[in-house]
Amino acid sequence: MGIADDLRALLSSEQVSTNRSVLEQHSRDESYHTPVLPDVVVYPRSTEDVVQVVRYASVRGIPVVPFGVGSGLEGHVVPVKRGISLDMMQMQRILEIRPKDFLVRVQPGVTRKRLNDQLRRYGLFFSVDPGADASLGGMTATNASGTTAVRYGTMKDNVRALTVVLASGEVIRTGSFAAKSSSGYNLTPLFVGSEGTLGIFTEITLRLFGIPEATVAGRAEFADIQHCGNAAVALITAGIPITRVELVDAPFIEAVNAFKQTHYAEVPTLFLEFSGSRESVEADSRMAQEILSDEGCRDLQFESDEHARNQLWEARHSSAYAFQHQHPGCGLLSTDVCVPLSELPGAITNAKRLIDEMKIPGAIVGHVGDGNFHVSVAVDPADADALRRIEQFNEQLVFHALRVGGTCTGEHGVGLGKRKYQEAEHGSSIQMMRGIKEFLDPGHILNPGKLIDEG
Amino acid sequence: MGIADDLRALLSSEQVSTNRSVLEQHSRDESYHTPVLPDVVVYPRSTEDVVQVVRYASVRGIPVVPFGVGSGLEGHVVPVKRGISLDMMQMQRILEIRPKDFLVRVQPGVTRKRLNDQLRRYGLFFSVDPGADASLGGMTATNASGTTAVRYGTMKDNVRALTVVLASGEVIRTGSFAAKSSSGYNLTPLFVGSEGTLGIFTEITLRLFGIPEATVAGRAEFADIQHCGNAAVALITAGIPITRVELVDAPFIEAVNAFKQTHYAEVPTLFLEFSGSRESVEADSRMAQEILSDEGCRDLQFESDEHARNQLWEARHSSAYAFQHQHPGCGLLSTDVCVPLSELPGAITNAKRLIDEMKIPGAIVGHVGDGNFHVSVAVDPADADALRRIEQFNEQLVFHALRVGGTCTGEHGVGLGKRKYQEAEHGSSIQMMRGIKEFLDPGHILNPGKLIDEG
Repeated sequence: MGIADDLRALLSSEQVSTNRSVLEQHSRDESYHTPVLPDVVVYPRSTEDVVQVVRYASVRGIPVVPFGVGSGLEGHVVPVKRGISLDMMQMQRILEIRPKDFLVRVQPGVTRKRLNDQLRRYGLFFSVDPGADASLGGMTATNASGTTAVRYGTMKDNVRALTVVLASGEVIRTGSFAAKSSSGYNLTPLFVGSEGTLGIFTEITLRLFGIPEATVAGRAEFADIQHCGNAAVALITAGIPITRVELVDAPFIEAVNAFKQTHYAEVPTLFLEFSGSRESVEADSRMAQEILSDEGCRDLQFESDEHARNQLWEARHSSAYAFQHQHPGCGLLSTDVCVPLSELPGAITNAKRLIDEMKIPGAIVGHVGDGNFHVSVAVDPADADALRRIEQFNEQLVFHALRVGGTCTGEHGVGLGKRKYQEAEHGSSIQMMRGIKEFLDPGHILNPGKLIDEG
Repeated sequence: MGIADDLRALLSSEQVSTNRSVLEQHSRDESYHTPVLPDVVVYPRSTEDVVQVVRYASVRGIPVVPFGVGSGLEGHVVPVKRGISLDMMQMQRILEIRPKDFLVRVQPGVTRKRLNDQLRRYGLFFSVDPGADASLGGMTATNASGTTAVRYGTMKDNVRALTVVLASGEVIRTGSFAAKSSSGYNLTPLFVGSEGTLGIFTEITLRLFGIPEATVAGRAEFADIQHCGNAAVALITAGIPITRVELVDAPFIEAVNAFKQTHYAEVPTLFLEFSGSRESVEADSRMAQEILSDEGCRDLQFESDEHARNQLWEARHSSAYAFQHQHPGCGLLSTDVCVPLSELPGAITNAKRLIDEMKIPGAIVGHVGDGNFHVSVAVDPADADALRRIEQFNEQLVFHALRVGGTCTGEHGVGLGKRKYQEAEHGSSIQMMRGIKEFLDPGHILNPGKLIDEG
């Protein structure tokens, strides 16, 4: 009997697949990393199902790789050692909405858009917005963030409690419904961002926010990317409680115009959002206007109508897809450094210079309020020379970020592509990370080969 | 040669003391827990000094208990197994202020008031305010919070990076200056709140905020504590971005009036603060006024003048001292449950009922915006019967909080007094906590007998 038959006997036959196209779907994410087929795809429906699968895999030393919607950008879900791809998307129940506590408890297969559809009637929303309609399990596993983190924080700031199946098959609960606690060790943030290497989440309790009374979005155009970066830093240091501030370089605007038939000026642009009470939004956007024109903004347009705002953010969010559309047959490599805000203009200027010098087919986009920016680069996986050059480029960005006190990944995670930077970034604390991994997963069955795992 | 002589040879003679009154100072904190004298008090001046002491202690299995200003409320610094009390207060340098990054890097012996004095010239402040002028090392060790956590978060939310000396004597750095990261495992929040049991902090990087343009404080009086609690919950659920909302029960107001010669009405009161731009503060306090009168507020007074505001918060902060002043010779036991906001009115009503039924000489004060409240109880340590009754009372509050999804300690920490609740609160995740402790401190030399350590 093979693994698939064993698992069919443990769960049910419709929860287990070895269909070729299903295996292929689970061999990759949206990145340039080389796909690897799992041996089998399993669809758990409950914590107990996950326990069964993990216990089975643990005894036999079979890798278990959790899978959400596959929208990751660093190969986290690629089953490099084959084994079981654990597709969490049938665990998609919203278990409990606690409007007065600003909390919701979900299964990991709920996607953020579906959650927000359900929350709207309560006047609440879940804030983390990485662009893709990712699963909340995947977002927890990578400590995702995105455009709204500058105001509402990352997943680490918004995951209140977890139910986790450990490699031993044991189920633990971390955190509580309380807004704060000094009891025991803080285990929840250790699991957030652990990329499936320490345990498998089966329930996630998330913090919610009230939908603001008023929201205004804006676009500010600049002559060059330096002025654009400086203006973003000036907005933040002035203390304006901005909801989003996104830098989009000219090549991205060109790609969006071609892809979405829009007519934005093809220059470096800041996409902005202010929200709060009507009075505060008015005051904030007035103050922003003054700062932006001091910083050389050439044109500034505000949109308060919901449709126009959605169109504007749709343009921002589609920029990566639009860019990829211009390069058919190519995969996407997205750099992801995050630097202290004071170092952002320098880091962006450095990236721009390297793009030119190294002839990188890339464009810059960034969550600049957090000091986080991406260079999206189209990669032909068959072109080894190009791939090597692009990886050298990424390495230069990463070592620049580390020199100025930053990190190799602000939000995409380590996965396969940033393992090589972990020693340089974390120094001797890497031994402590390895020790925690060894203690929790001595058999290296949980997403082997990712983050710092050598398994 | 004894421990003290060894340590004098390792460091310098003026960094080591066995003076009786120095040992007594380091035998206790502000709580009712029984003092225990350390064998020796050591004053490190650098990370290297800490490494020397820890290496020495590790080889010989001597306990090392970090000590700050001794303002803790749960006996964390009591050296229950004697050994070395490591007084961190000579490591009191502010190492680096990065105004554009809203960050500061400090040694652990810097106190929060001194830090804020230095930050004022930059228009910045460090937000966490537990009342006492605690050391930042101690605040990190207990995951302290206090009155402003409802707006700015707890220590866990505001510690960006740490330098930690592990039990092995190894020095690790966690986190970075970047506002967010998905690189490696999140070790920083694991150390925050670890109460000196996992490592000793020698550098702490903290997040800062800009001093708001305008601040208004207020006092809202109610006929009974139920209305007071309901009003606090109503303010939060209305989404008003309040900076502080503190419930102070009538007995505390009486104690403050006697202690500070003030003349506040001796009824359950909410102490409030709003801050932001002038416009937003005005809008917020107007909206709060409407909600408070709907909720039965009898009298509401706002103060925007800085002196009057300071006086008001001074009254709030001195309430515990004022209360203790009324009970000479007694220690203070402060309960510290934190419950989901929707459960707060029920939890406070329950506490009030138990105070009456069990004849507890206690009064309620709370950071009610977070669902966290304290019953301060005067305890005569010589009266074993009274102590037993008060501990039974605390136990009832804790088990009520756990039943409704809360925690036994919102901000004071576990220390000695709440170890007995750790199994009930954390269930099977306690094994993971013990495993992390074993891995990092196999000899149980770091603050033995605290949190979950059995050493």
